[in-house]
Amino acid sequence: MEFTISQIAQLLNGTVEGDSTGIIRSASKIEEGSDGDISFLANTKYEQFLYTTRASAVIVDQSFKPSQPYTAALIRVANPYLAFTQLLEEYQKITEQRSAGREQPYFISENVVIGENEYIGPFTYIGKNSRIGKNLQLFSGAYVGENVIIGDNAVIHPGVKIYDKTVIGNNCSIFANAVIGGDGFGFAPEADGSYRRIPQLGNVVIEDNVSIGSNTTIDRATMGSTIIRKGVKLDNLIQVGHNVEIGENTVIAAQSGISGSTRVGAQCVIAGQVGLVGHITLANGTKVGAQSGVSKSVKKENLSLSGSPATELKAHLRAQSLVRRLPEIVQRLENVEVSAGIKSHEGK
Amino acid sequence: MEFTISQIAQLLNGTVEGDSTGIIRSASKIEEGSDGDISFLANTKYEQFLYTTRASAVIVDQSFKPSQPYTAALIRVANPYLAFTQLLEEYQKITEQRSAGREQPYFISENVVIGENEYIGPFTYIGKNSRIGKNLQLFSGAYVGENVIIGDNAVIHPGVKIYDKTVIGNNCSIFANAVIGGDGFGFAPEADGSYRRIPQLGNVVIEDNVSIGSNTTIDRATMGSTIIRKGVKLDNLIQVGHNVEIGENTVIAAQSGISGSTRVGAQCVIAGQVGLVGHITLANGTKVGAQSGVSKSVKKENLSLSGSPATELKAHLRAQSLVRRLPEIVQRLENVEVSAGIKSHEGK
Amino acid sequence: MEFTISQIAQLLNGTVEGDSTGIIRSASKIEEGSDGDISFLANTKYEQFLYTTRASAVIVDQSFKPSQPYTAALIRVANPYLAFTQLLEEYQKITEQRSAGREQPYFISENVVIGENEYIGPFTYIGKNSRIGKNLQLFSGAYVGENVIIGDNAVIHPGVKIYDKTVIGNNCSIFANAVIGGDGFGFAPEADGSYRRIPQLGNVVIEDNVSIGSNTTIDRATMGSTIIRKGVKLDNLIQVGHNVEIGENTVIAAQSGISGSTRVGAQCVIAGQVGLVGHITLANGTKVGAQSGVSKSVKKENLSLSGSPATELKAHLRAQSLVRRLPEIVQRLENVEVSAGIKSHEGK
Repeated sequence: MEFTISQIAQLLNGTVEGDSTGIIRSASKIEEGSDGDISFLANTKYEQFLYTTRASAVIVDQSFKPSQPYTAALIRVANPYLAFTQLLEEYQKITEQRSAGREQPYFISENVVIGENEYIGPFTYIGKNSRIGKNLQLFSGAYVGENVIIGDNAVIHPGVKIYDKTVIGNNCSIFANAVIGGDGFGFAPEADGSYRRIPQLGNVVIEDNVSIGSNTTIDRATMGSTIIRKGVKLDNLIQVGHNVEIGENTVIAAQSGISGSTRVGAQCVIAGQVGLVGHITLANGTKVGAQSGVSKSVKKENLSLSGSPATELKAHLRAQSLVRRLPEIVQRLENVEVSAGIKSHEGK
Repeated sequence: MEFTISQIAQLLNGTVEGDSTGIIRSASKIEEGSDGDISFLANTKYEQFLYTTRASAVIVDQSFKPSQPYTAALIRVANPYLAFTQLLEEYQKITEQRSAGREQPYFISENVVIGENEYIGPFTYIGKNSRIGKNLQLFSGAYVGENVIIGDNAVIHPGVKIYDKTVIGNNCSIFANAVIGGDGFGFAPEADGSYRRIPQLGNVVIEDNVSIGSNTTIDRATMGSTIIRKGVKLDNLIQVGHNVEIGENTVIAAQSGISGSTRVGAQCVIAGQVGLVGHITLANGTKVGAQSGVSKSVKKENLSLSGSPATELKAHLRAQSLVRRLPEIVQRLENVEVSAGIKSHEGK
Repeated sequence: MEFTISQIAQLLNGTVEGDSTGIIRSASKIEEGSDGDISFLANTKYEQFLYTTRASAVIVDQSFKPSQPYTAALIRVANPYLAFTQLLEEYQKITEQRSAGREQPYFISENVVIGENEYIGPFTYIGKNSRIGKNLQLFSGAYVGENVIIGDNAVIHPGVKIYDKTVIGNNCSIFANAVIGGDGFGFAPEADGSYRRIPQLGNVVIEDNVSIGSNTTIDRATMGSTIIRKGVKLDNLIQVGHNVEIGENTVIAAQSGISGSTRVGAQCVIAGQVGLVGHITLANGTKVGAQSGVSKSVKKENLSLSGSPATELKAHLRAQSLVRRLPEIVQRLENVEVSAGIKSHEGK
């Protein structure tokens, strides 16, 4: 890509302060910028880097007031982070070519419908009766089972496995080696100590605009559906148990796990390595800190939780800080014991 | 499926109370049941739903006594949960067709033996000298290395990778993208700070009736075998290190990890996101709570553990509740300090 | 393999004490050794097994002084563990045959360069413009995207997925179903509560002698590179976020996760199920205990940390032991309260 700063400002509906004729060839973080780069400043925590960066242009907020000299041209916009994202999208469109056509050998069973403008990589499999919308990208080694329904603009990355009867909406991306619709983990104990598999007859339903990370696993329901609502973003290596429901626009970071039949509300933010026990409900807007273990339903909206078992963030932080102070607390207890004549100084 | 309630009662060796001529078309949870559904009530926690469900029939215990009016026909059996499981199995048999035959292209090396009635999906690989029993189902993209032995009725789901020399018993299911027999994580430190791989010459042995979840990884032994005893059920995204042994009928939930050379007893129940350090032994019947970290051997059978590091459940719960009460405890300590004249009220 | 003890001693630059004519056919752990086996004793913790083992030969340290009778021949060397590793390597060379040639069908796009002596398994994919060194082993179902660069002696195991623009050095092993270079988890919140994907335009750079375990995921950078320095060893099911850098010879055990933009120093040892938050730095030589959660940068080198949030190991152990003693501490507090007249014995 090669644009002038003024061309970029126009694209982003922004105004330029400084030399608008400079040439931009690449994008970088503000702390790493060099000549020909464009960068952005959204968080004032990074303001110091504006005064040292060698980037040729920096996207800033309309109201930003610099406090020191700097060399970059400024492009002022309403939302620097979104504007920069938009710029990266343009860059991606220009530089990355979409795969197209069909590459042999692939295996498509009978009675499959695929919309126009598809890319079908080699070693892919589509089971019978599956119906897929337009602009499909199905990469090498991906597997789509029988009676699957997928909307438009799906990007199914290499090695993804989608089991029978899964339903996926429009504009979904599923990253490499993720598994959608494997058996729920359900076993009935028998008298001799062994376990008998409970047939898992349900499916997984994924709504529009969902993103699912690499090696993440989502189990199908025993009966009914495991449901991922629209706009949900799941990171890598996440486990979603059978009959779980995840609400709209909820974001979950890597390696978290959600046990069977739990319902996560909309607009929740769940950090990495979190565990949720089964059969609980999290209200909309719940935030859960990294490595927390949530063992009870959360009924009030927009709470922040942390710890294992998870409690409200403030209570958790207070208890944690007192745990760290335990040596001092025990010392104070000993002093009182001595003072009360319960213990002598030598008696420790 | 379409059966009368009396036909189902006959299948389950049960007796009907109410209209035995009703038609059943589907199965559902008792809280979601609608007309034409059959459901079950095994746990009295859910008894309330019997009085509101619109399911046409509900399977209950022989001795169950309803306390309010209800509309469903009851089918009384010795074990409602198992009876319902059996019913789902019948339903599955009727509605889901087993894949059969061989789909091109697949790759089978020389000197491979496969029993009768196999399904071999496209893009599958079987390495030389491997021997597999009858009724194999090997789905698209699955990989079986060299010198592998697999018993009868194996279901190897899409994308599963089984390394050389693995031995698998009868009736085992391995779900999508699981990896069996990768290198154990063993490295010897060298003088310059680098590490040298220790060759991993052993294998993985999996006995009969084992189930292994999606994206789970089981490493082969350095020497000898990593052993998964009969009836073990592993959920998704579990890590089993080299030279581990897991005892009969032990059940492990998602995202747990077992470090090298640890031996887990029979009939253990390990919840999700648990970690076991290496070189320890867990006695038969040990139960480990979610997110626990077990750092020492457990010699007594049937203990329940929790926490990280894990302690007996009761001690863990007591300590946890006192941690939550620390703010109050510190306040009480301050009161005593004031009372003892060690600290003044202002002195805080 | 069949060698005399003196032949092995010669190979290892060692000296024999006892019968040097015995025949060795296999290797085993010292506690499991039987006739015809060779074993080793590196850790004095296992010395007792020397006096009971039935192994025919045991590799020991030059300075080792037995304190009881034993039957095995001793081979004295400078470093028993390394010598045994070396022996296993020889054994592996002799017994395991390297795959060679190309097995149909595979898919290689235009303008791909592959060095001599390659093995290319069936159902593998190499995207356009990728360049790979000599002695490549690319196993069934592995995927290499476009514009990828891989050095010499790479072993890419079955089902591995390597995204576009990844750069990999010499002598790297990547185990089954690992995913290198998937999108970083970056989304910008929009006014309506939904999230917009931030294009991830960077790549992953892996230097020489790196090992990556099964089902591990390493995300590519938003801009720039996610970097794995030379000699790094990653176990299974690890998550490495976008723009992370892991220093030379750092070792990370299974199921740990490193959030975006964090920098881990050289020669660190990170145990299993550890979590590192984003945007922090760990100094060289940092050791992190299992299940710890590191939430702050560590500036001093060679510290040992544990806990969640992680603190220095000693402080963590002290606080943990006091948590376990909380019931006793509260009892002592009550005694003082009674003694101070704040509380009566009955007042509990």
